[in-house]
Amino acid sequence: MANSKYEYVRSFEQSDTLLPNTWIVVRIDGRGFHSFSNRYNFTKPNDIRALNLMNAAASAVVKEIPDLCIAYGVSDEYSFIFHKTTTLFDRRSSKLLSTVVSTFTAFYIHLWRVHFPPDIALQPPHLPTFDARTICYPTLANLRDYLSWRQVDCHINNLYNTTFWAMRQKGGMGPREVEEELKGTLASDKNEILWGRFGINYNDENEIFKKGSVVFCQYELEEPAEGRTDTLALEEDEATAVPDTEPSRTQKERAKKVRAKASVVVRHIDIIKDDFWERRPWISSGKPGKPLAVEEQ
Amino acid sequence: MANSKYEYVRSFEQSDTLLPNTWIVVRIDGRGFHSFSNRYNFTKPNDIRALNLMNAAASAVVKEIPDLCIAYGVSDEYSFIFHKTTTLFDRRSSKLLSTVVSTFTAFYIHLWRVHFPPDIALQPPHLPTFDARTICYPTLANLRDYLSWRQVDCHINNLYNTTFWAMRQKGGMGPREVEEELKGTLASDKNEILWGRFGINYNDENEIFKKGSVVFCQYELEEPAEGRTDTLALEEDEATAVPDTEPSRTQKERAKKVRAKASVVVRHIDIIKDDFWERRPWISSGKPGKPLAVEEQ
Amino acid sequence: MANSKYEYVRSFEQSDTLLPNTWIVVRIDGRGFHSFSNRYNFTKPNDIRALNLMNAAASAVVKEIPDLCIAYGVSDEYSFIFHKTTTLFDRRSSKLLSTVVSTFTAFYIHLWRVHFPPDIALQPPHLPTFDARTICYPTLANLRDYLSWRQVDCHINNLYNTTFWAMRQKGGMGPREVEEELKGTLASDKNEILWGRFGINYNDENEIFKKGSVVFCQYELEEPAEGRTDTLALEEDEATAVPDTEPSRTQKERAKKVRAKASVVVRHIDIIKDDFWERRPWISSGKPGKPLAVEEQ
Amino acid sequence: MANSKYEYVRSFEQSDTLLPNTWIVVRIDGRGFHSFSNRYNFTKPNDIRALNLMNAAASAVVKEIPDLCIAYGVSDEYSFIFHKTTTLFDRRSSKLLSTVVSTFTAFYIHLWRVHFPPDIALQPPHLPTFDARTICYPTLANLRDYLSWRQVDCHINNLYNTTFWAMRQKGGMGPREVEEELKGTLASDKNEILWGRFGINYNDENEIFKKGSVVFCQYELEEPAEGRTDTLALEEDEATAVPDTEPSRTQKERAKKVRAKASVVVRHIDIIKDDFWERRPWISSGKPGKPLAVEEQ
Repeated sequence: MANSKYEYVRSFEQSDTLLPNTWIVVRIDGRGFHSFSNRYNFTKPNDIRALNLMNAAASAVVKEIPDLCIAYGVSDEYSFIFHKTTTLFDRRSSKLLSTVVSTFTAFYIHLWRVHFPPDIALQPPHLPTFDARTICYPTLANLRDYLSWRQVDCHINNLYNTTFWAMRQKGGMGPREVEEELKGTLASDKNEILWGRFGINYNDENEIFKKGSVVFCQYELEEPAEGRTDTLALEEDEATAVPDTEPSRTQKERAKKVRAKASVVVRHIDIIKDDFWERRPWISSGKPGKPLAVEEQ
Repeated sequence: MANSKYEYVRSFEQSDTLLPNTWIVVRIDGRGFHSFSNRYNFTKPNDIRALNLMNAAASAVVKEIPDLCIAYGVSDEYSFIFHKTTTLFDRRSSKLLSTVVSTFTAFYIHLWRVHFPPDIALQPPHLPTFDARTICYPTLANLRDYLSWRQVDCHINNLYNTTFWAMRQKGGMGPREVEEELKGTLASDKNEILWGRFGINYNDENEIFKKGSVVFCQYELEEPAEGRTDTLALEEDEATAVPDTEPSRTQKERAKKVRAKASVVVRHIDIIKDDFWERRPWISSGKPGKPLAVEEQ
Repeated sequence: MANSKYEYVRSFEQSDTLLPNTWIVVRIDGRGFHSFSNRYNFTKPNDIRALNLMNAAASAVVKEIPDLCIAYGVSDEYSFIFHKTTTLFDRRSSKLLSTVVSTFTAFYIHLWRVHFPPDIALQPPHLPTFDARTICYPTLANLRDYLSWRQVDCHINNLYNTTFWAMRQKGGMGPREVEEELKGTLASDKNEILWGRFGINYNDENEIFKKGSVVFCQYELEEPAEGRTDTLALEEDEATAVPDTEPSRTQKERAKKVRAKASVVVRHIDIIKDDFWERRPWISSGKPGKPLAVEEQ
Repeated sequence: MANSKYEYVRSFEQSDTLLPNTWIVVRIDGRGFHSFSNRYNFTKPNDIRALNLMNAAASAVVKEIPDLCIAYGVSDEYSFIFHKTTTLFDRRSSKLLSTVVSTFTAFYIHLWRVHFPPDIALQPPHLPTFDARTICYPTLANLRDYLSWRQVDCHINNLYNTTFWAMRQKGGMGPREVEEELKGTLASDKNEILWGRFGINYNDENEIFKKGSVVFCQYELEEPAEGRTDTLALEEDEATAVPDTEPSRTQKERAKKVRAKASVVVRHIDIIKDDFWERRPWISSGKPGKPLAVEEQ
């Protein structure tokens, strides 16, 4: 019995190949995490267990998919970056994003009990799920601006939330009242409220709350070059010229092995300034760095 | 501190809205399930526990997302169908597919221990994950051909696998040897091998293996109309004309309530012939049917 | 000397294949025709020479590209419809739309002097040009609604323009003054102004102005069926089922010959009501009709 | 009379916005120019009148659409490059390509009689038409590789055609015979045939045949920088960083005026080497150069 009569339906699948030589961001977002976090009694404004779980799931994704060069997470969202040279799944958008979001979800659910106590067990149908999207960036500068956008957003939201919940929890104010007072305030105003009323120095807050989390393969840090322009520009130019020296099979195999041995680390540091990128050139180059002599992590 | 400097990066997101008035299929596929099924000792050719788990996860997805009108699964794949009138997530492909695949993965992982014994526990990093794609079909006839394609495929593969594993397990043959003998055989040849050598009547095999699994909301079955053309054609025409009688808010609310009370059932029946569709007009119409007097399930 | 070093750039071309089994509309619009029509002294509100030129160019396009089943034009825009079964250029959007707009432009320029007197010659760089877009419609009902939308628009605009220019040319009013008075008026108000002040019965206006222009191949008109539902629904259903009776090569060749002999005609008639479609079933079926015994045109 | 009943059809238009910060190529190709060139007795292997007409039409397009920074043509094809910063038509692919191909067609038809003698008049329906496609390139290096690909192609084809037609016209050979002999030959072989049998030194051939035609705005040439890497890399980096110094309205107006005064020139020179780009930095920067003291052209 042949299946040819119906096979014409395959022709309705449409191509969703992403433009070559662009950085691919897959960003996942928790679905309905406001009510989800209430149901499982997440601590406000930040639940460190939930953040650690996000980071554990993200690390697993980065380990599973070697074409990812960096990931950045804050709150219930995570951005995974495929290096611009990736040819994984022929750069098909749906395959890339579904693989990332499914793998992330799998680890998030599976690792839940590692990060939450037994009395906070997941109860179906209230399971955590995520949606996802893909975005392409033509240049490293655009990609860095994307990541800077997310990290600045982390800071803005965290300062607001920290102040909001201090006023509610320590100040005993109602939600409307707090919203009203915070409307239109500047960062300096919020810092002043925190310090003046509650003795909280925002700078002393946990780095994971203020900076979010960066996930990447760890190699030996390099000395930063003198100026940004040179390093990045060189990188950009080199990587986009005619790829006449496509790495050989042997080179690829060697890179794969080096990478497999490297640790995937989670850091809570500034990724907006050049320093982060200059000291970790393997992230933008897509080529593994020098293995750590002694394990850093 | 404003975020406006970097916000321009948002403009790089591209629209992936799917064509209105088309049936949307989201098909998920197990990633690397060949080795996954070996690792967790799935029974060959079919592991009923694994299939029941697939069906449980799929049922949860259909319950969670009311815009789904039917789902069909076989082996490690499942097709979820959004009714052509859906406006969920503004019909954005990435949102639809990521929501489906993430929800499916969440339930699959969470329900694993319900369907497998304690000694077959999931061991990270070997977690089950799925990829996904979307496909649009302009007409009900195309959609039915898509589903027929999957069900015929189920039959072809199951007959092959049943014969293959009978020859290996009962016939004691090696994999090469079996492949060689089966090359180019017709369905009748395989039926003959099963019956002649192993006394297996393929027709007696489990329906879930032969037909796959159909998931949908259950209402009272209707009497099939006299001829297919009338029913379907009418449906097609009615649904595609100018929607000048868009259902009212009240009607929508009522439909939602009826649907919420309906059971989501799993069946292993023919969905190629007209009978299935004529007796369950709510699947193609997208409007809830008559509630069951006495719960059928 | 090989060109392989640079040939990788071909991989950046992205697929723009349109969904199968959908009606493809290519709509072209005159670019900057407001000032263009002023420069060449088009008669207001309608210049019959310009409309005839549009129709001549459109007829040439329909003759050149047999996969077009109908075209509809009004003012400086024209919609060309590819039958849903077309596989021309593998349904690539850019090829379809560029071919239509380039062919239309070519004939519009070339035929200019046939429709305008020698003293109104085209003066570069002020040449007429057109932009274009493609839109897909899954069902005949959607397509007919699209065409109805354009024809209703023609009516609305023409009634407004006829009234506007009567008030200016015969009433001696200024543009602002007219706009002000017409703001918020109903069709009946405009009819009343035309009749009451200027003795113009809008119904007596030229059909080409009121209805726009329809271009199609002419065959012998058929008797309309009794009810719309039957005919159209049947058509819809028949055309979308599994194409197991794909026309043979001979049938295709015969159809091509019949079509080549058919006249392409321009009509100014209602295409909203069923009558137009029922009497010309070849437009929606995509199969040539019965050749005219005596040439109608 | 409202049009709201049908207006829902507008929602079927799908977005075709091209990725920001990428170079947009619109390439047009003559449709059926093999038979077209036979019909109008084009000289083989190159008809200088036809090439001049292509260049005249391309120059008109570049004049009409200021966002184009360069164009390159060979035979019956032309590539028009929009600067990566363009926001023309919101970067909608269909609008960009239809505008280019319609404008090109308009001028090609209109200027035909300027370039061909009166006895070679266009005869409908045999009018020249063009199709078009869009391709995006993320970096200047990719774009230059694209243009290099076209220019190398020009060289390869022209050497072949020059040899082919010499053998036919001067050598009196038949087409099959020539094809057979040229199969598998290297460039050096063809040069040898040309020189040895027909006394033709390929280097002496007309530059327009060997190099194709480049169209761009002319400003004062600049001294090339010392090395390519610096200049281009700098350009690349500068242009892709956060656009925090978006040009002011005044700057834009000034740039527009400078550009409007600049001549659009046609050159037949190498665009593969760095020299072309370094001496004309306005092409890659998108900012007008220094106006010529004395008109060069």
